[in-house]
Amino acid sequence: MSIEQYMQELGRNARAAARQVAASSTAARNNALLAVRDALDGDRAALADANAGDLARGREQGLDAALLDRLELTPARIDAMLEGLRQVAGLPDPVGSISEVNTMPSGIRVGQMRVPLGVVGIIYESRPNVTVEAASLCLKAGNATILRGGSESLASNQAIASCLGAGLAAAGLPATAVQVVATADRAAVGQLITMPEYVDVIVPRGGKGLIERISREARVPVIKHLDGVCHVYIDAGADHQMALDIALNAKTHRCGTCNTMETLLVAAAEAEALLPALAQAYAAAGVELRGCERSLALLPEITPATEQDWYEEYLAPVLALRVVADLDAAIDHISCYGSHHTDSIVTRDHGRAMRFLREVDSSSVMVNASTRFADGFEYGLGAEIGISTDKLHARGPVGLEGLTSRKYVVFGEGQVRR
Amino acid sequence: MSIEQYMQELGRNARAAARQVAASSTAARNNALLAVRDALDGDRAALADANAGDLARGREQGLDAALLDRLELTPARIDAMLEGLRQVAGLPDPVGSISEVNTMPSGIRVGQMRVPLGVVGIIYESRPNVTVEAASLCLKAGNATILRGGSESLASNQAIASCLGAGLAAAGLPATAVQVVATADRAAVGQLITMPEYVDVIVPRGGKGLIERISREARVPVIKHLDGVCHVYIDAGADHQMALDIALNAKTHRCGTCNTMETLLVAAAEAEALLPALAQAYAAAGVELRGCERSLALLPEITPATEQDWYEEYLAPVLALRVVADLDAAIDHISCYGSHHTDSIVTRDHGRAMRFLREVDSSSVMVNASTRFADGFEYGLGAEIGISTDKLHARGPVGLEGLTSRKYVVFGEGQVRR
Repeated sequence: MSIEQYMQELGRNARAAARQVAASSTAARNNALLAVRDALDGDRAALADANAGDLARGREQGLDAALLDRLELTPARIDAMLEGLRQVAGLPDPVGSISEVNTMPSGIRVGQMRVPLGVVGIIYESRPNVTVEAASLCLKAGNATILRGGSESLASNQAIASCLGAGLAAAGLPATAVQVVATADRAAVGQLITMPEYVDVIVPRGGKGLIERISREARVPVIKHLDGVCHVYIDAGADHQMALDIALNAKTHRCGTCNTMETLLVAAAEAEALLPALAQAYAAAGVELRGCERSLALLPEITPATEQDWYEEYLAPVLALRVVADLDAAIDHISCYGSHHTDSIVTRDHGRAMRFLREVDSSSVMVNASTRFADGFEYGLGAEIGISTDKLHARGPVGLEGLTSRKYVVFGEGQVRR
Repeated sequence: MSIEQYMQELGRNARAAARQVAASSTAARNNALLAVRDALDGDRAALADANAGDLARGREQGLDAALLDRLELTPARIDAMLEGLRQVAGLPDPVGSISEVNTMPSGIRVGQMRVPLGVVGIIYESRPNVTVEAASLCLKAGNATILRGGSESLASNQAIASCLGAGLAAAGLPATAVQVVATADRAAVGQLITMPEYVDVIVPRGGKGLIERISREARVPVIKHLDGVCHVYIDAGADHQMALDIALNAKTHRCGTCNTMETLLVAAAEAEALLPALAQAYAAAGVELRGCERSLALLPEITPATEQDWYEEYLAPVLALRVVADLDAAIDHISCYGSHHTDSIVTRDHGRAMRFLREVDSSSVMVNASTRFADGFEYGLGAEIGISTDKLHARGPVGLEGLTSRKYVVFGEGQVRR
């Protein structure tokens, strides 16, 4: 069987399973999640064996230490997967709710019902625990899923796949409701993203290169997450302690996440009072500053920023720093250089807070909070499959609701159109 | 200037204007709509001249009568455009509303704000009144718009464009908030759909060929409307008079619309009692029936249906007719042959009604109502820019809300992430 035929078979299976999953009860889907949990718990030895094989092959192929670390399924990571399944089973079912039904002049009553998307394709890199996380969210939202993990985690993913199949079958759902691609052939990705007849949406999880390639080549809609060039703007008159706390937390709580601040904008009115204290705090935290001309005048010891720095998602202990005239200049900077991910203003002024919320065109806009809060758990979504920087459909952290759609439902009593 | 440079200039203008429109007040946008109305009313003579030129060129080029009819801007059609502007100005502003704000364990309060999409590209065929309809909805929803009409209506569209610009300027909005492409060069379309840096979404309005080509080539998300292969299923035990009324209305109220029924499914239990009466009613209405084997046994005079008939969007007084065993068989048929547009069940049974609503995967699903109700006005959206058969973002009739997005807004009091 060619790779094309193989992927089309997965697609046909998924399309057929999607109808059954969509029609399944909440209880059946929750039971399946808990049965998958039990299957994984019972198969720890097999999981460890498969993972050890992937790790050994990875070391032979010279994978770097960071990749090998992400690949490893430690007992603690397996515990976390099991706990995740229990939590997802406990979340409210997003499917089937009908929003406010209104009666129209014709007498028909019109509402919108939340329904599964259908078939979701997930393409991700080395972490095998994503297999369980992504599959569980998609299943809870009533979808069938095709997962394509990294080739370096193939054996681990296959071991997980057999637990997924066992759990689904135990709950009376088709085992094909979650399918894990069983080949390392890269052509599988190309095929998965060009089967609109079988796949309704692709969620890529991985580096910018992967996501850009998928977006370019896909014939299926993609819920994508590109860079997070996030800003904090410290407004004129802001509380200095709050500004310092938020600016430090947004950069240093974790360096490598997409909601980490990459550029700090400071209103000129506060620069003289704030920059020395900021520089001291960042130096103590090991953060390198790259400043605009006006900040260099106050902090001659820091590196000058180049135009490229304003575009940079460092994902590292480096911060671009710019003194701006006022709110308008801050919004101009964010509009020009930002990536529409997450931006925050620290201010005491209500009018400027509301202007920032309205005029900054990002998936999350914040007042007096750290950008690090842009996260499905922190937003109360229960879990997230990623953070979307798209404008259509799901924007910002994508939870169960982002894995569903809505359709119009019409209740009539025999009405015809006049 | 090359066509590529010209389109990029329109894109840059639109991107800049979009920020101003998004930040504009409801009053400014409504004033602009009413000022456009006044400008069109004052320029009727110029509109008529331009349109007469288009019509003369169209006749020279041998356009068919239907196209020439759609191209004509009669005084009544101009009146309808003016009335449409007045109505859109009267609709509630969808922008800026913040949905239920919840407090999280961290203390931050999280909500979602409805915001414009940004820049909308509209690609359409001959009807010049679409220029005003589409521009007015996009503007009301806070977007900048680039419109690319058919080459046969170029002069009419340019005359309308000058009224749009005058109205925008009169209300203090940038004239570039609505730009009409001023060239018949087809390369303009290819450029418009591949500028994701300047265009956020494309809404094509036209035939299936146009929409398929745009979907295939676009690098920008497309809100698209493909075929409407709509079904009515008459369930076992349905009220016969209601079934006859709905089946007749769904086919004959208008033949050429996307929400017209193309295939009628009848439960075997009702076939004998219903088919003769249905056949008589359709014959009286001039509708040709194409039947399955079981229907031919009852109606030997009708044409046998081929497999292809079940896929067909006739847009004509032709109806495919199939007798099915029961609800499951009806849902199977719709899943296999339908186009996910609009499907209706006529039934007295509550359980089967709810199963049909849940299990039929279409943008509109109905109980005891004619498919012809799938329409933005009938659903209370005030107006529609089209009917989406996509699953992501807007699905079904697309009104002002479909021309907006939502972003997360976070209200903090200095919270940082622990």
